[in-house]
Amino acid sequence: MTSIAANNPSLQSWVNVEPNSDFPIQNLPFGIISDANDPTPRVAVAIGDYALDLRAAAETSLLDELDIERDTYEQAALNPLMGYKKMGIRALRNRLSELLDNQHSDLYQAKIEPCLKPLTDCQLHLPVSISDITDFYSSEHHAQRVGELFRDPDNALLPNWKRMPIGYDGRASAVNVSGIDIQRPLGQIKLPDNPQPQLEPTRKLDYELELAYITFDIEPKGQPVATQDAAEHIFGFCLYNDWSARDIQSLEYQPLGPFLSKSFNSTLSPWVVTLDALEPFRVSGETQNPEVLDYLKTPFNDHLAIDLAVTHTTPDGIDTTLTQTNYSTMYWSMSQQLAHHTINNCRFNAASVLASGTISGPTPGSEGCLLEKTRNGANPVKLNDGSTRTFLEDGDTITLSGRAHKEEYSVTIGFGYAAGRITPAIALKQDTP
Amino acid sequence: MTSIAANNPSLQSWVNVEPNSDFPIQNLPFGIISDANDPTPRVAVAIGDYALDLRAAAETSLLDELDIERDTYEQAALNPLMGYKKMGIRALRNRLSELLDNQHSDLYQAKIEPCLKPLTDCQLHLPVSISDITDFYSSEHHAQRVGELFRDPDNALLPNWKRMPIGYDGRASAVNVSGIDIQRPLGQIKLPDNPQPQLEPTRKLDYELELAYITFDIEPKGQPVATQDAAEHIFGFCLYNDWSARDIQSLEYQPLGPFLSKSFNSTLSPWVVTLDALEPFRVSGETQNPEVLDYLKTPFNDHLAIDLAVTHTTPDGIDTTLTQTNYSTMYWSMSQQLAHHTINNCRFNAASVLASGTISGPTPGSEGCLLEKTRNGANPVKLNDGSTRTFLEDGDTITLSGRAHKEEYSVTIGFGYAAGRITPAIALKQDTP
Repeated sequence: MTSIAANNPSLQSWVNVEPNSDFPIQNLPFGIISDANDPTPRVAVAIGDYALDLRAAAETSLLDELDIERDTYEQAALNPLMGYKKMGIRALRNRLSELLDNQHSDLYQAKIEPCLKPLTDCQLHLPVSISDITDFYSSEHHAQRVGELFRDPDNALLPNWKRMPIGYDGRASAVNVSGIDIQRPLGQIKLPDNPQPQLEPTRKLDYELELAYITFDIEPKGQPVATQDAAEHIFGFCLYNDWSARDIQSLEYQPLGPFLSKSFNSTLSPWVVTLDALEPFRVSGETQNPEVLDYLKTPFNDHLAIDLAVTHTTPDGIDTTLTQTNYSTMYWSMSQQLAHHTINNCRFNAASVLASGTISGPTPGSEGCLLEKTRNGANPVKLNDGSTRTFLEDGDTITLSGRAHKEEYSVTIGFGYAAGRITPAIALKQDTP
Repeated sequence: MTSIAANNPSLQSWVNVEPNSDFPIQNLPFGIISDANDPTPRVAVAIGDYALDLRAAAETSLLDELDIERDTYEQAALNPLMGYKKMGIRALRNRLSELLDNQHSDLYQAKIEPCLKPLTDCQLHLPVSISDITDFYSSEHHAQRVGELFRDPDNALLPNWKRMPIGYDGRASAVNVSGIDIQRPLGQIKLPDNPQPQLEPTRKLDYELELAYITFDIEPKGQPVATQDAAEHIFGFCLYNDWSARDIQSLEYQPLGPFLSKSFNSTLSPWVVTLDALEPFRVSGETQNPEVLDYLKTPFNDHLAIDLAVTHTTPDGIDTTLTQTNYSTMYWSMSQQLAHHTINNCRFNAASVLASGTISGPTPGSEGCLLEKTRNGANPVKLNDGSTRTFLEDGDTITLSGRAHKEEYSVTIGFGYAAGRITPAIALKQDTP
């Protein structure tokens, strides 16, 4: 692993950062902010409870040593910044780390401090303009439980599942940033008292706990990416909730896969945590059996240990933890996903998003969605206010969170939140054309 | 149907247009051109064997009566022009029709003629920057034959098929304009002598004859579109070849649908034929049985009669017509597709593409892909050079074409071509990581 200056665990910032913050100086995730004083979206990094406005920071000339045009920071999406690729953004993050380092506070604090905006004053926007989005299905525990529910429990995994990372194309326009309400979708569903499908609000609205990574423009276009080169093309990670309507899905998905059961909405967290910041958390995955084909072999620690959680909040504000798991439980790794996705010459433009699929662990409480957790509604979960849920109800809020930490590295790298609240379905018109 | 001045069949242009041209004055499809003298992509319409350069036409001030900013024509994609929506583009097309009308040649010919570029001198670009792409599966004849091949011939259609237009999200980055080579993709396939999948160039490379329509930005976002309002949101149509690798597809598609078997490449024709220009060709579809749900009911002629053809060309230049069919044979109509796609609040940005799925007719010779035509390779087709094909070979070229005409309207509205030539797969590296 390349040594990255900004990852040094002994760094401390002159910005006050609470010990439990998601955003220590070793993180510096990138996002797009605006505020009441200036509603123009622009590039920032998060540190502690603040956003460092990079448009303002650039105006101090303290970023001039980097070969990054100033107007790159005056954009409503990170895509232009991503044009500087892995090495350009690494240099920027290293420089920002210097500017925020308390060892250099005499040099930089006076100039940089005015560029800090309290996060509570900021509106956070979708960080990238997504060109294409793919959703994988890479957790064996998830695929196994879903297979047990809907197919033969003794042959829950389809024969292709351990041969390749199964995935499908999603809809970029469906992706919203954290905080946007999720309107319950209508769709064709079958009710118990009617053999024919009817148009109804979904009764099986579910969350899916996922992580998504965002790629740079991959050049040359249409060339397979080898697993050992994948990291060069990965900008960073966000939390991702692939909201799903299970009753719509079960009726529509054969033979072409999920469609309207997914495209009503998806939620991305606002801060892109760079793969650079996550490098200290690399771990190896379990041994894959059967052995994978050569193009899917990975010669190094290709998984990331990131603790993930899902919190349910009732309309009255009562929280219940629904899921706790770890990203390192995935069967297929990030590099295997990219190698597979490009083996057919598929082209990647900047801000292609590759989502993991539901991340579920092996144990009770680690199921990454309600479909698994309630066994498709058969076993309701009890909430801390005494009520129960089979699937989500109007007014419920689901919040994903993620934090990477390990003893040897004394630093926690957090993701912030991907949250969404369920609102009632659109009223069905009574008149017909 | 609204009366549209530019559709008047008695119009003749002062531009010489051959009687069999795809691009009479009643068509005026929009595209993006460049040429050797000026490589900057810009907006144009096609007429006869010429492109009318709208950037140049705007400089004559003859388009000033329209409320369209001049720099709209100086763009590498039609998206900014599409911001003027249905009525803005209708007004532009009506105005261009006036300028090209031989009744007004004394007024306009001298100024407009220098803005014409021979099509043979033009490079044609992808006409729009695609935000999202959906591929439907709306031909009953296609779904029936595929179902007969892979499932029970007596129950070839899945139960959902006649309840809703089945579709899936595709990959926008895969779409190329006509003329770009199609490199044979690699993928995991099963060969007869090996029970395990191996990485190989596809041996079942196929075309799919489709039409795709392109939507405007649909506002307000996330509201269902009623069938009777769908036409207001449709800019126009292109030919679309959804190249498919059948052996890759058969191994990967369960349960999430086709993925790498499609995303290696798709081909769009360069000229967007407006729905306005196609209005004279509206016809009703067959009666749908079972009756569809209210949101899918259509009160008017919602299909389009467009003759379609697929031509195979050998490396030696020998042509064979592989498919002849008509778009009016589709079971699900364009308005039903859009109503279904939006019923879940799915958002549509400008240049969302909705492809029809393979268009197959009921009779031999009308099958829209080789999978159907050769019954998955069992019955090779004979080409005019005496050779046969089960699927496509390196060096083969496939060209889609389409033309709408009817006796009462004495005008042919053509689409030009969507062509692609198969090139050999990338060499497989022998070394492993």
